[in-house]
Amino acid sequence: MRAEIIAVGTELLLGQIVNTNAQYLSQGLAELGIDVYYQTVVGDNLTRLRQAIETARGRADLLVFTGGLGPTQDDLTRDALAADLGLAIGLHEPSLRKIEQLFAGRSVELIESNRKQAMLIDGAHPLRNDTGLAVGNALSAGGKHYLLLPGPPREMKPMFDNDGSDWLRKLLGDAAALRSVMLKFAGIGESALEELLIDLIREQSDPTIAPYAKEGEVCIRVSTKAGSAEEAARRMEPTLQAIRSRTERYLYAEEDIPLEAAVIRLLTSKRQTVTLAESCTGGMIAASLTSVPGSADAFLGGVVSYSNGVKHKQLGVPTELLEGPGAPGAVSEETAAAMADGMRAAADSDYALSVTGVAGPAGVEGKPVGLVYVGLAERGKPAKVEKLQLAGDREGIRIRATKRALYLLWRTLGGLE
Amino acid sequence: MRAEIIAVGTELLLGQIVNTNAQYLSQGLAELGIDVYYQTVVGDNLTRLRQAIETARGRADLLVFTGGLGPTQDDLTRDALAADLGLAIGLHEPSLRKIEQLFAGRSVELIESNRKQAMLIDGAHPLRNDTGLAVGNALSAGGKHYLLLPGPPREMKPMFDNDGSDWLRKLLGDAAALRSVMLKFAGIGESALEELLIDLIREQSDPTIAPYAKEGEVCIRVSTKAGSAEEAARRMEPTLQAIRSRTERYLYAEEDIPLEAAVIRLLTSKRQTVTLAESCTGGMIAASLTSVPGSADAFLGGVVSYSNGVKHKQLGVPTELLEGPGAPGAVSEETAAAMADGMRAAADSDYALSVTGVAGPAGVEGKPVGLVYVGLAERGKPAKVEKLQLAGDREGIRIRATKRALYLLWRTLGGLE
Repeated sequence: MRAEIIAVGTELLLGQIVNTNAQYLSQGLAELGIDVYYQTVVGDNLTRLRQAIETARGRADLLVFTGGLGPTQDDLTRDALAADLGLAIGLHEPSLRKIEQLFAGRSVELIESNRKQAMLIDGAHPLRNDTGLAVGNALSAGGKHYLLLPGPPREMKPMFDNDGSDWLRKLLGDAAALRSVMLKFAGIGESALEELLIDLIREQSDPTIAPYAKEGEVCIRVSTKAGSAEEAARRMEPTLQAIRSRTERYLYAEEDIPLEAAVIRLLTSKRQTVTLAESCTGGMIAASLTSVPGSADAFLGGVVSYSNGVKHKQLGVPTELLEGPGAPGAVSEETAAAMADGMRAAADSDYALSVTGVAGPAGVEGKPVGLVYVGLAERGKPAKVEKLQLAGDREGIRIRATKRALYLLWRTLGGLE
Repeated sequence: MRAEIIAVGTELLLGQIVNTNAQYLSQGLAELGIDVYYQTVVGDNLTRLRQAIETARGRADLLVFTGGLGPTQDDLTRDALAADLGLAIGLHEPSLRKIEQLFAGRSVELIESNRKQAMLIDGAHPLRNDTGLAVGNALSAGGKHYLLLPGPPREMKPMFDNDGSDWLRKLLGDAAALRSVMLKFAGIGESALEELLIDLIREQSDPTIAPYAKEGEVCIRVSTKAGSAEEAARRMEPTLQAIRSRTERYLYAEEDIPLEAAVIRLLTSKRQTVTLAESCTGGMIAASLTSVPGSADAFLGGVVSYSNGVKHKQLGVPTELLEGPGAPGAVSEETAAAMADGMRAAADSDYALSVTGVAGPAGVEGKPVGLVYVGLAERGKPAKVEKLQLAGDREGIRIRATKRALYLLWRTLGGLE
């Protein structure tokens, strides 16, 4: 099956946002064994949108739209396609009721334009939206297939992954699907990991081995086409085993979860707790741990100690470490250790992580941008501290420091067992 | 002039990379006053590339290509366009000499395929590549214009910004450039904002008014084409004034900065400080404030009080508020007020924000997902608390709670003055 992805939105044509949806959908369609031949971006303009639909229909079997399902005048995707197919649009009552219920609990009024988000093209199958209002549309007409997804990635991704993919799988029948395992790594860079696996990567044919890098994390997708999950598992196992044996120290999950979820899972299974004392990461580690549902059992809380006053008062870091001639200063091994010990003792947690460093753009205390100390206190043991020199801009340094701190805890907890 | 951007590369269709080039070029073309009507992505396939060229020529005056100028068999852009226009391709001697010189200084041999990167379509103007080997091509033929740029952003960007833009400016003569002002809003949703401005949006012609939404924030871009910044400002002012007068409570910046940056700017200008007591946002407010360079002057630190123990010990929230029969509980107006007051007093800051709520996926204390209390303590005043019922999944609720807390502080600080 040949697909074309059509992203609808003038903000894309003006360069206000990057079309990350096209990448996400391309990957997802490839996994289903669907070839993407074109990606198109068109603005919120009925004439040009209809022309784009006509062009795409001439060269693809499946048209996957994102964007233009919202409540405003500019949201035209549903109208354009319905007009093109000569079909009417009707209200999907269950979706409207969901929208009404959501608004009933809020202080804002449901306005007429919100009803538009509950509209379905006649004959279309509704796609559930768990993270927003607009219902998705999936329909087949005139030998072609159409999938209409919302534009915001937070809504588009779960809709595609759930109802959208289910609908496509039914369309494809029982053809051999591409099945894959995602391996996630921390504490190692993409090139170093590739170096460890270079012969496997060079000699790959089936299964395939595809490395990807995200901020501070590296992943490898091992894939094969197989008729059943069992067949796929059997075919992939030797490759997975070879990768595991070489990367054990860094391999934190064999599924697509972030490092913070692996850490929360380990802590929960051991019934242990952690607290945080963050300086340059400024709450990022806390925000990432608390993004994991159920993290409250393992994560008790933390202190963001941006000023020396908070480091002293809330964490008990001695003033003589922080200020005065000859003091090691806020960005130092000693302060990182005192922050972790102080936090752990104050909250009586099993572990406490601390981070202090220079995220930039300017150096502090005569110390260079990228210098970061990560401390780990453990009940009954003296705190240990890692000194890092990280690359990147302010945000990059903060993200990498977050991942390195979580990696230190993950290793200390025993890693993937 | 109407443009289409054509990105060439199978890696884009497989979702291996994001098409950031399209965004960069869209922005650059908009600044030159050129309207981008479509962005297209096509793979490294001669037939489909030629079809994409034909389609684009039917709907645009200027085709801007990126990718497919490299040395390999897969690099087909030059060949496809030359074949399409019935033009030959020749070696551009100065570019070849540059490549030869670069290779002379290296340990690797110049191979035949590298010569391909010095090729120009007959009649094309060469575009200098300061960061790579492939020479760019710019040509006009049959009333249409073509710009061929390399795929790697490191090479594409400087080539477009220098020789590419120069060539386009000559093409345009002294036509007017698009100039725009970005208005940023908080505390209001996209549809409610549109409702406030519906007549302005419906009647817009010049300047144009384009609303769009990001997580918890809404923006409007007001644009016009003008020969000078002064002329643009004069033409946009009545529209800006009309928008301002209706949206004053929500308009936090007239430039593209996040709400946290506006808050830090306000605090810094008033030489005031804030601290945070976060429960369900779990460090997200701290992480967003500390993402702003220079935030250390205004943001002293905070406590992420996930457990009741931390709420009590680090923030001084009375245990009788948190637990026991008849206690209001951790998610309550009383606790939000006590958290903010406790944090403000402990750190002696001018303000303290607190957030406590139910981010989900499950309810707590018999309270529903999405119920969030935001507290604000101010030196010398009793803490005020806002009760919210927020929609979305765990991450969405946390993001919205973060923005609402920052919005409350921004309003209290006096907003945009």
